[in-house]
Amino acid sequence: MDEVKVIEIKKSIFEDNDKDADLLRKELKAKGVFLLNLMSSPGSGKTTTLIRTLNLLKDKMRVAVMEADIDSDVDAVKILRATGVPSIQLHTGGMCHLDAEMTRQGLDNVAMDGTDLVILENVGNLVCPAEFDTGAVRNAMILSVPEGDDKPLKYPLMFSICDIVLVNKIDVLPYFDFDLEKCREYVRMRNPRARVIPICARTGEGVEAFAQWLDDEVTAWKKQ
Amino acid sequence: MDEVKVIEIKKSIFEDNDKDADLLRKELKAKGVFLLNLMSSPGSGKTTTLIRTLNLLKDKMRVAVMEADIDSDVDAVKILRATGVPSIQLHTGGMCHLDAEMTRQGLDNVAMDGTDLVILENVGNLVCPAEFDTGAVRNAMILSVPEGDDKPLKYPLMFSICDIVLVNKIDVLPYFDFDLEKCREYVRMRNPRARVIPICARTGEGVEAFAQWLDDEVTAWKKQ
Repeated sequence: MDEVKVIEIKKSIFEDNDKDADLLRKELKAKGVFLLNLMSSPGSGKTTTLIRTLNLLKDKMRVAVMEADIDSDVDAVKILRATGVPSIQLHTGGMCHLDAEMTRQGLDNVAMDGTDLVILENVGNLVCPAEFDTGAVRNAMILSVPEGDDKPLKYPLMFSICDIVLVNKIDVLPYFDFDLEKCREYVRMRNPRARVIPICARTGEGVEAFAQWLDDEVTAWKKQ
Repeated sequence: MDEVKVIEIKKSIFEDNDKDADLLRKELKAKGVFLLNLMSSPGSGKTTTLIRTLNLLKDKMRVAVMEADIDSDVDAVKILRATGVPSIQLHTGGMCHLDAEMTRQGLDNVAMDGTDLVILENVGNLVCPAEFDTGAVRNAMILSVPEGDDKPLKYPLMFSICDIVLVNKIDVLPYFDFDLEKCREYVRMRNPRARVIPICARTGEGVEAFAQWLDDEVTAWKKQ
């Protein structure tokens, strides 16, 4: 029962990804499904954060998860086991990002009827996923303390397209040269509207604020 | 005097990158220049490791550095200031990797006469740089403790092409669930010949072993 469906994603042939992403957003709106695109570097704590968030949201709404990875399926299995939330694994076959058509290939394997929220865990990479609109309603990212507070300076596009930045692993702030206020300032430089929430996925600190934000976003979007 | 040269790299048009990379290696061999390609995720400590390594090697051989980044030049400036080693910045214009022709564009701006070693700090990304042979004689990568010991399972190609894996930030091992032996085992699964060296770039621990490895590799290659 712990086995998860693994989808081999094919390279998409659409030339105009922005147009296709807008189309996907309209299709999702018609079905009442909110898509969140979650991005980060490898090892920033996406899966642990997701598990905590799902456990806070799963009794309030119907959620499904798509885990994108180059070729393993450890994350989808981990999420299903820890939360019971339906999770599928998308294999990108070495590709470093997902565009809207690739996201659609994944969504074709999610039971959409009655689903309120689909969370896409994108490939672990601060560069490429930022360049391709997946069709998501909102983009979220995780920056972890050990990666450094200067990342918004070095990966401007990623920070500029994210609606929310979770600063994870704040429990290790004493051991790293990471200035939370500086980080907030750098994020603002890239995107003045982005919300920044410090969290510790390991202990759960701050994750409730993220879950609440997501809950509010889904509710607001459904009313639109 | 602290200003570094910034090179805007153009997208390459070569179709057969493997062939072009072999050609570049031959050209470098003819000039007696050893090229090391250093890869990692953002925030794993590439630049700090590099500064420590350069300070150990710069009196033994002539070294130059090429820093690849999407659009900032903070790393090249930092390296030049901390080591005095000639450093140039390569801007990839949003591109997530460097192939051999893009590397050659950078090398065209390095004074090659008498240079023994050029270190290329590739774009921070565990996915794309692994897919393109830069023409380097050796590939090195840094995995930092906070990223997790499971990364060789999730980014197989990157680990399979690296001759040496530096496990950085070992000073924070007590605060993370990172099993060094398990990590060694996973690296071996991907590449039985890869050397694994635990280091702490912040304090310098272990960096001498890396510098020695690099010194030996350059010496051996010059004799070939």
